[in-house]
Amino acid sequence: MAQVRNKQVILKNYVSGFPKESDMNIIDSTITLKLPEGSHDVLLKNLYLSCDPYMRTLMTNPKYSFNPRSYTLQSPINGIGVSKVLESGDQNYKEGDLVWGITNWEEYSLVSAAQIHFKIEHTDDVPLSYYTGILGMPGMTAYAGFFEVGKPKKGENVFVSAASGAVGQLVGQFAKLIGCHVVGSAGSKEKVDLLKNKFGYDEAINYKEEHDLNAALKKYFPEGIDIYFENVGGKTLDAVLLNMRIHGRIPVCGMISQYNLNQHEGVTNLAHLIYKRIRMEGFVVANFYHLYNKFLEFVLPHIREGKVVYVEDIAEGLENGPAALVGIFNGRNVGKQVLVVARE
Amino acid sequence: MAQVRNKQVILKNYVSGFPKESDMNIIDSTITLKLPEGSHDVLLKNLYLSCDPYMRTLMTNPKYSFNPRSYTLQSPINGIGVSKVLESGDQNYKEGDLVWGITNWEEYSLVSAAQIHFKIEHTDDVPLSYYTGILGMPGMTAYAGFFEVGKPKKGENVFVSAASGAVGQLVGQFAKLIGCHVVGSAGSKEKVDLLKNKFGYDEAINYKEEHDLNAALKKYFPEGIDIYFENVGGKTLDAVLLNMRIHGRIPVCGMISQYNLNQHEGVTNLAHLIYKRIRMEGFVVANFYHLYNKFLEFVLPHIREGKVVYVEDIAEGLENGPAALVGIFNGRNVGKQVLVVARE
Repeated sequence: MAQVRNKQVILKNYVSGFPKESDMNIIDSTITLKLPEGSHDVLLKNLYLSCDPYMRTLMTNPKYSFNPRSYTLQSPINGIGVSKVLESGDQNYKEGDLVWGITNWEEYSLVSAAQIHFKIEHTDDVPLSYYTGILGMPGMTAYAGFFEVGKPKKGENVFVSAASGAVGQLVGQFAKLIGCHVVGSAGSKEKVDLLKNKFGYDEAINYKEEHDLNAALKKYFPEGIDIYFENVGGKTLDAVLLNMRIHGRIPVCGMISQYNLNQHEGVTNLAHLIYKRIRMEGFVVANFYHLYNKFLEFVLPHIREGKVVYVEDIAEGLENGPAALVGIFNGRNVGKQVLVVARE
Repeated sequence: MAQVRNKQVILKNYVSGFPKESDMNIIDSTITLKLPEGSHDVLLKNLYLSCDPYMRTLMTNPKYSFNPRSYTLQSPINGIGVSKVLESGDQNYKEGDLVWGITNWEEYSLVSAAQIHFKIEHTDDVPLSYYTGILGMPGMTAYAGFFEVGKPKKGENVFVSAASGAVGQLVGQFAKLIGCHVVGSAGSKEKVDLLKNKFGYDEAINYKEEHDLNAALKKYFPEGIDIYFENVGGKTLDAVLLNMRIHGRIPVCGMISQYNLNQHEGVTNLAHLIYKRIRMEGFVVANFYHLYNKFLEFVLPHIREGKVVYVEDIAEGLENGPAALVGIFNGRNVGKQVLVVARE
């Protein structure tokens, strides 16, 4: 059986501080496009790969990382992707199925069926790449974090950081759908414009130009914040804690501002958790995938009616993968960063 | 109507940093022991006063404090106390009733009926002073924080800081009652001995002698901590975050290590809230007083059967109030710090 080229993005060295493109390498490997005899695995052709902040935590030397799942040096990195099944040794999948789940950053991957999260019932009125974003992990993250962890009520005041990102842009729109007052922060004029003009945020803060975030939050939330959807951590969290309202909630989705720091910034205002009786709750989307079908029933009609929109930042080709991934830690992406490996 | 002496503890100046005895003054005021004509207030003879960490936050200049209830300069400070009703303009109380609630640090107080929390059904088999502690606010705090906020399950691993204090000594005993593994930290050999020999803690840490709290926690909780009952904040919280277990809970009761710092210590390990899906929730006991009767039904039989014990540190006389109050911030008290004004 002939082998074909299998381009890969591999991790060259463990990362400390901000990741650089040179921490990864593009190599040409080969693969036999045939399932090994008796295998129960699934052979995938990768189409769209997702660039997500949590991936940084897997680039740290496992000796210094809390996370036992660190990437393996000289092996392809992995993440969420949309793939087509070429051959399956698992009865749940068959040739031609579209799926999303954990796959490797390469053209073709042989994965355990357990790595596949869901089969995609694709319809042509939504882009297939959306299954790396609004219809996939980030979408479920926004939905579960806002509704299940945040437990919002109509009319409440909601603040979202990294508000134009893969998750943030949805949290803001979901909050508007149920009648909340929503303010977001992002790191450029372009993103702030998107927040107000595209995602329907009531107000938006460019945190890079705002020298006194505490004062800005006081201005936009004179009565305080009921829900802070936490994506960044550090100084933003500290300013938010001063502005929370009694019985406020902080779903902790991510702390992207901290992932590249060898010593995390100290958060000093945690005593406000007591003064305001705040619930601050970390969550990971994997605990909420049982709600996925319910989520699709909720979000698909909104997409089709144009009531929820989604902005993607598309990079083309595995060779541009390292730049795309590194870019999300510098805020270079506008909207969800997707990497196209192949279009079916 | 003759006036009588009314000794008071007044706040001389706002406090920055650790409070000192000299921040307060003892003065002799006078009071007429007769309710003003038509008053709906209640005239109290104060018996036992409670020294509680939250009182420090009321000693800060209100200009620099989040808390609008700061004490008034040159006026008596206030706190929780057990008092006897001398005369009542409110129909819920009558002469001779024993009550506990917010009163002033003085011999006699004229208070609004709304400041009284509960009437005491006193029986001679428990000390009346217990209503400043195990049968009062700290007892309810331990009960609500551990059971209602912490939601413990049998067999879980529980860590308590300030573990021999007014609240901590009870959290540990409650946790043992339901079959948890319980470790506490405190700041002296005497307290550590109390934890193990009197309160039934499985293990105890003297945090002043433990240079690597992270390592100590790893030793005592090889499988991690399910519930951390937070009384101190700062470095202890940071070490605990590294040792929490997935789906752990941190009821945030207090952060006494921080109240005297002009700049709070930074907590750097909050990203573990995400990694471990931790719920960290601040609470104040006032939101749980509807459970007070249920709490008494739970705790009184345990006290009578000797299954729950309570250690008090009793100071005698208002003139010793400033020292007693200041002492709790230096860890001088062993057990619940009570100040006796009069014994009925």
